[in-house]
Amino acid sequence: MECVVRPCRAEDCVEVVRMIKELAEFEKLPDQVQINDQVLREDGFANDPFYRCLVAEVPPEHRSRDGHTVVGYGLYFFTYSTWKGRNIYMEDLYVMPEFRGKGIGKKLMSKIAEIGVENRCTQMKFMVLDWNQAAIDFYQGQGAVDLTAAEGWHFFHFEGDALEQLSQGQLGQ
Amino acid sequence: MECVVRPCRAEDCVEVVRMIKELAEFEKLPDQVQINDQVLREDGFANDPFYRCLVAEVPPEHRSRDGHTVVGYGLYFFTYSTWKGRNIYMEDLYVMPEFRGKGIGKKLMSKIAEIGVENRCTQMKFMVLDWNQAAIDFYQGQGAVDLTAAEGWHFFHFEGDALEQLSQGQLGQ
Repeated sequence: MECVVRPCRAEDCVEVVRMIKELAEFEKLPDQVQINDQVLREDGFANDPFYRCLVAEVPPEHRSRDGHTVVGYGLYFFTYSTWKGRNIYMEDLYVMPEFRGKGIGKKLMSKIAEIGVENRCTQMKFMVLDWNQAAIDFYQGQGAVDLTAAEGWHFFHFEGDALEQLSQGQLGQ
Repeated sequence: MECVVRPCRAEDCVEVVRMIKELAEFEKLPDQVQINDQVLREDGFANDPFYRCLVAEVPPEHRSRDGHTVVGYGLYFFTYSTWKGRNIYMEDLYVMPEFRGKGIGKKLMSKIAEIGVENRCTQMKFMVLDWNQAAIDFYQGQGAVDLTAAEGWHFFHFEGDALEQLSQGQLGQ
């Protein structure tokens, strides 16, 4: 099937947020999505964008059962490793279920890797849920390495009150 | 002890690379450090820097046994969550062993959190090695949550030939 991978435009943010919610449903964490298309537009399409995004688009005659032509996305940004320098980080990779098995995910992921290599990134990083064996098989089949299993890296965050208190710890000193 | 936390300047990169290597030694992965102070300077002090950094500095009379006054650093950058919007990511937090237990690590970490909150970040993220119980206790004592344990997130990467091949996958399509 003909499918174009192209940079996300501001007006695509409604479609991207729809797919962000579909992905969170699949990941069994739907209540986590707190952003909307307006926030996504502000954070990605002003000066100093916080992320960059690719979308996969099919022609109208191949649109989804519920009428969508934007059927996948890959959202990424540049990060840094103090060991290896520039990195590209793939925050999300998603293809709508009815469009899977057609190489669209691979195409999005390859394009992000290509952008990384062009920008002299030495690694492309991402996270996967440990129960999502289909995704793990897909990524490992392309040569990805699970660094949590191999080296023991655990992913932590501060959020909400903990972040607020931490940020104010500085003030008292 | 008097200790100032301030933004890293280009000329501090030599000292930061020294501490990056000390941290990698501690993490039992010293061979992983492939950057040098020139790379660090290029990637952090040109247009569109790939990272930002704070250093902790003590007065000359309190310098380390081997003569250093820059005794800690916190390296960070902005990232993005499609669930929760803007994030700040703490790539490294390090204080030289002889300066630990004086609140310097807390001061660096609080300042990064403060910069995050000022920029409307809802989370501050970071990674910890699962055997580094002292670090885990320190972070959890401040309210951090281990999302690998709580939700099952595993950290993956593509590197070297795997990244190169992936980036070329796009070209054939």
